[in-house]
Amino acid sequence: MSELLKNGETKKEKLKEMLKKLHWGEDEDKVKEEFKDVLQSISPLEIPLIEQELVKEGISSREIARMCDIHVEIFRESVKGAESEVKELPAGHPLRTLYEENIEIMKDAEILNLYASSLLNLEGKNRSNVLRTLESIVRGLKAIGYTHYNREEMIHFPYLERRGPTAVPAVLWRKHDEIRSEINRLLREILKENYEEIGKISQDLASRLIDMVFRENNILYPTLKVLLGEGEFKAIRMLDDEIGYYKIRPGDEWSSNAEPIMPYQIQEEITVEQLMNLPQYLIEEMKSKMGEVKSEPDKTGLIREGDVELEDGYMLPEEISAVFAAMPVDVTFIDKDDRVRFFSGGKRIFTRTTSILGRPVQLCHPPKSVHIVNKILQAFKNGERNRAEFWINMQGRKILIQYFAIHNKEGEYLGALEFTQDVADIKKIEGEKRLLEWR
Amino acid sequence: MSELLKNGETKKEKLKEMLKKLHWGEDEDKVKEEFKDVLQSISPLEIPLIEQELVKEGISSREIARMCDIHVEIFRESVKGAESEVKELPAGHPLRTLYEENIEIMKDAEILNLYASSLLNLEGKNRSNVLRTLESIVRGLKAIGYTHYNREEMIHFPYLERRGPTAVPAVLWRKHDEIRSEINRLLREILKENYEEIGKISQDLASRLIDMVFRENNILYPTLKVLLGEGEFKAIRMLDDEIGYYKIRPGDEWSSNAEPIMPYQIQEEITVEQLMNLPQYLIEEMKSKMGEVKSEPDKTGLIREGDVELEDGYMLPEEISAVFAAMPVDVTFIDKDDRVRFFSGGKRIFTRTTSILGRPVQLCHPPKSVHIVNKILQAFKNGERNRAEFWINMQGRKILIQYFAIHNKEGEYLGALEFTQDVADIKKIEGEKRLLEWR
Repeated sequence: MSELLKNGETKKEKLKEMLKKLHWGEDEDKVKEEFKDVLQSISPLEIPLIEQELVKEGISSREIARMCDIHVEIFRESVKGAESEVKELPAGHPLRTLYEENIEIMKDAEILNLYASSLLNLEGKNRSNVLRTLESIVRGLKAIGYTHYNREEMIHFPYLERRGPTAVPAVLWRKHDEIRSEINRLLREILKENYEEIGKISQDLASRLIDMVFRENNILYPTLKVLLGEGEFKAIRMLDDEIGYYKIRPGDEWSSNAEPIMPYQIQEEITVEQLMNLPQYLIEEMKSKMGEVKSEPDKTGLIREGDVELEDGYMLPEEISAVFAAMPVDVTFIDKDDRVRFFSGGKRIFTRTTSILGRPVQLCHPPKSVHIVNKILQAFKNGERNRAEFWINMQGRKILIQYFAIHNKEGEYLGALEFTQDVADIKKIEGEKRLLEWR
Repeated sequence: MSELLKNGETKKEKLKEMLKKLHWGEDEDKVKEEFKDVLQSISPLEIPLIEQELVKEGISSREIARMCDIHVEIFRESVKGAESEVKELPAGHPLRTLYEENIEIMKDAEILNLYASSLLNLEGKNRSNVLRTLESIVRGLKAIGYTHYNREEMIHFPYLERRGPTAVPAVLWRKHDEIRSEINRLLREILKENYEEIGKISQDLASRLIDMVFRENNILYPTLKVLLGEGEFKAIRMLDDEIGYYKIRPGDEWSSNAEPIMPYQIQEEITVEQLMNLPQYLIEEMKSKMGEVKSEPDKTGLIREGDVELEDGYMLPEEISAVFAAMPVDVTFIDKDDRVRFFSGGKRIFTRTTSILGRPVQLCHPPKSVHIVNKILQAFKNGERNRAEFWINMQGRKILIQYFAIHNKEGEYLGALEFTQDVADIKKIEGEKRLLEWR
């Protein structure tokens, strides 16, 4: 660390010189060209430390932020080897998208560090103002967790896992979660206005974010590029949209006519040729974790004989029935002609017997409320309403009865669902009970 | 009404005479034989009025109750025509079961009337005691609604409806509901100790209960006997058990090897021969309501091409997917080998993409909580637990996450279900909002 700092002294002086020139209005491109060497020599991991030093010496946040932008730009231009291959993929390719997000993440990490450092030199109202800005920056960082990281965990990792190296995604996911939890911890300290802790955690968080960018750009993305085929990237491109992106929109340069391939369709092992092209780090990681997590390729097929193909998955009729029966709700479905087609089994609030299958729903209700049933169904069919809700007290229980209009993907009316549950216990729920507290 | 009362004067005198003999210890069978004629001449509808008169003249409740028993017994022996055919069916036949319940209902109606009448002649502590007894009698009557009437509405009526006369079940159901609502009204007046109203409603309720017994024994059951075949009664016998009985257990004299026939399998019209055997009242009712409710037989088949046969119904894969998507909960199913097989579509709390299908659930979780996931699954598989519940706060929402072990009918473990919902709105539900209030 002291080596890094000493080394940083010279770089810091150079950067100060650069900022002065920018301050005096010199042309940005000319300045960039002049200081390219020093900017390139700065590793992303050094940036938070250098920024902090500059803040201590009184350089304004505004000017340092400008430096961040130039640094990121140069860093982006200068990447070499594995990373540069990813960088050069056409806009819209899933790996290029991840890469573009990482540029945003790196910028935000630097800005975070910057604001946190400047906080320590301020007092009173100024400090409060910067704290509010910092808070909004940190709240914004949460989105990294549910877009960028979430896409990797849910979409990209399964493609890697099928081929064997499950340890690599596990390590990354663990680190993602550490970052998520640091963000939450930082938010708590911000609310407590605990300035010392805020400074420490911010710096730590910025380093972690930048470290993750580095790992992804140099290990994960090159690995995926070596292993995955066009059909897989095609599928990823489609699925990515369902989760969303961090501060960018994917471009449309890249497109593919390949048949999308889902992870469960993959039966391939890593070839010798692929292995030779993989980043060295990945191979080391695979070797070291071999004993801990199974690294055999997963060739289990998804679709079994008798499976019903549903919108998002495959289940046997027996499984479908058992799932409905296990749900803590009563479900009854009437089709587009108002006839009862299905009701869930298991312990029910309102008993149903198979004698009502095929029966028009109007004949399943007390005659005096049939006109209301018809009104609701009319509103469902003509699209005026999509739900109707009722609740009643019954022997100390609170029964919530919800009706939902059912449509297919094309928007055609398929029928209506009755969804009934006893919510008495739910109403009593307070506080939190988390997975890790399970005994 | 005055005619009925005048006529009742003589009967009342005769009954008083009978009770005196019983009081003095004369042999019950001998007394019964002697007064058979007068007892047979009393219509069930007269009983409440006569009882009330006797109470006014100071005859004790105990003695009147004894008279009720003898009356019911004689009434039962003396029934003629259509009703007697039902009465003679072997024990366990669904119509015989209904008939046996009606005997209990008639007894209870008479007892209700008796207690309500005696209430008016009492004061102070005695009155309070009788009121408590009356309350428990009335609470007991509620079971008629969810056993005897419910079986008719849910199991027997559909068999009738398929053949055309939908008006007849509708009339009976409306009357059932009037009785249900009178029971609830009576309970409210009992809680208010509003003696005058209690007397009036009890008498009215007793008449309605007895009237219903009469309609069922003389119209509904004979009609079902004429129209339904053995396979239908076989199915009814099986389904009856799912709802339950009023104060009796069906006998086991009757049994059938016929293939059970569900209402939706029926394609038959009423034949001329059947029509000639139907109770006159039913034919009148069918004629008079012909314009109001469609009386054409319903020959719509239940099972369509592509339908998936589930435990309790038939749905197309498209309907199954759409039902899951419309439910206000997120559902994810993992199979017995812990692999993700299905998740529900629609608007979800936690996004899922098809890339996780076939993925071992252990790889779908943050690595630090995998050991808990494994513990829960272990407890599910070895039968120690059947559910695990968690709840967390998320951006002003309260997310309840429940896990359920899934078993088939044979008790084999099929997998586990994740069932997630935002319960913030449910927690705010207060009071009641009933169907009839819908706008």
